[in-house]
Amino acid sequence: MPPVITIDDPDDPRIEAFRNVRDRDVVGRGEGFIAEGEVVIRQLLRSADFEAASLLVAAHRIETRHALLAEVPDAAPVYAAGQSVMNAIVGFDIHRGLLALGRRRQDRSADDLIQTRPRTVVGLVGIANHDNMGGIFRNCAAFGVDTVLLDETSCDPLYRKALRVSVGGILRVPFARAGSGPDLVERLRRHGYTPVGLSPAGSRTLSEIGAIPNAALILGAEGPGLPDDVLRAATTVRIDMSGGFDSLNVATTSGIALYELTRREA
Amino acid sequence: MPPVITIDDPDDPRIEAFRNVRDRDVVGRGEGFIAEGEVVIRQLLRSADFEAASLLVAAHRIETRHALLAEVPDAAPVYAAGQSVMNAIVGFDIHRGLLALGRRRQDRSADDLIQTRPRTVVGLVGIANHDNMGGIFRNCAAFGVDTVLLDETSCDPLYRKALRVSVGGILRVPFARAGSGPDLVERLRRHGYTPVGLSPAGSRTLSEIGAIPNAALILGAEGPGLPDDVLRAATTVRIDMSGGFDSLNVATTSGIALYELTRREA
Repeated sequence: MPPVITIDDPDDPRIEAFRNVRDRDVVGRGEGFIAEGEVVIRQLLRSADFEAASLLVAAHRIETRHALLAEVPDAAPVYAAGQSVMNAIVGFDIHRGLLALGRRRQDRSADDLIQTRPRTVVGLVGIANHDNMGGIFRNCAAFGVDTVLLDETSCDPLYRKALRVSVGGILRVPFARAGSGPDLVERLRRHGYTPVGLSPAGSRTLSEIGAIPNAALILGAEGPGLPDDVLRAATTVRIDMSGGFDSLNVATTSGIALYELTRREA
Repeated sequence: MPPVITIDDPDDPRIEAFRNVRDRDVVGRGEGFIAEGEVVIRQLLRSADFEAASLLVAAHRIETRHALLAEVPDAAPVYAAGQSVMNAIVGFDIHRGLLALGRRRQDRSADDLIQTRPRTVVGLVGIANHDNMGGIFRNCAAFGVDTVLLDETSCDPLYRKALRVSVGGILRVPFARAGSGPDLVERLRRHGYTPVGLSPAGSRTLSEIGAIPNAALILGAEGPGLPDDVLRAATTVRIDMSGGFDSLNVATTSGIALYELTRREA
């Protein structure tokens, strides 16, 4: 663990990355991403693809978070601030008291990931909601998904809220962008996978997914679902429901589909 | 559809129930509950157990929501207000522009519900988070659950946020309180059901649930899970996961378990 550096002035340039955290969520932050709270930061410190560049900790938490801070590499400064200074830095009353600036160790392309022959692959097309993105990655981590490919219209998984909802799963499951939806599907086919799109109008039931060799799950946005050009290029499966009610949330759908898919693989 | 009554004064006593909606969420509202948005209000208007007592609609939405408003019974007044009056009434800038005051048509006890011999029953113990409550009910509606029993420590499903997350599923699936967790389990047994608790330490896998006659699913809070006295009184099943990661969200868990349970029943 690196020495703790005390910050007394909210305008200190060393903690620039943590300033006005919420506003930055909106404009994006080319220099990295913000991980909040002990659970997410622990995943950051143990991540293969990401690392902590620095931490900002409420001074009164330094003692109680000692086990976590002991995992921080020496190259990452740990800044400590009193609660009022910390609030002034981030721009709101922050209760978690534990923030990290994360960054990628290395760029990973879709081809880099797919060439490792991952066993379980998920493709996301048009997932624009950060809650759903986080929920899907939480499930991917729980069921041991090896690779997630994202189309160009899906939102950034490294947004603060998505990270939080994923309980850090986003920092655990390797992911990369893979162009348009049809590009993503075509890339999977080229590498020997069978893209399987979840759709209420699917031609087979999800329980048949075990009979599909090298199935890669493709999930689309709630509401519109997967676009037609993706559905046409994929095998489609549906989740049979008896309720005649509105469709499932896409994060829940991912959990059900991964449960079924990984059971067949076991 | 009843005639539309225009409200020009935010202090008009006729729209008292809609005043400061957010504060009321906190203190509870003995006189009923607030349903927001077209999707939830449609479920309210079609509910067997609940009904709309009145509606408050942004004036500019009256035309575009005509199909929905045509379903409002004559006994429920429809109030219309301009956007600024509406904001002043509810206490924040409201974008949905469509609120209803809902109330129960009739009290339903746990015994009332269970005596109808529902095919699919879910018991909830210690579900204190409104997002999770809403997500669970959304899944219950999607998979055609007939009855939900809640222990005394679970939160109120009729809270505004739970209703919204459930996309109205809470108004579609009959539910009732059933005392403590052990009381709930004992009641199910007395009526011939086999209570099956979901737990990471479950003695059987979820896929075996089809072999359990009259299984009734019991779900506990994320984090603590089901209390020991409930687990001891129930058959327990687990969802096998390969990821070695944090457990699943309880709403996702309910979706996976209901997928498995209702498939076996089909």
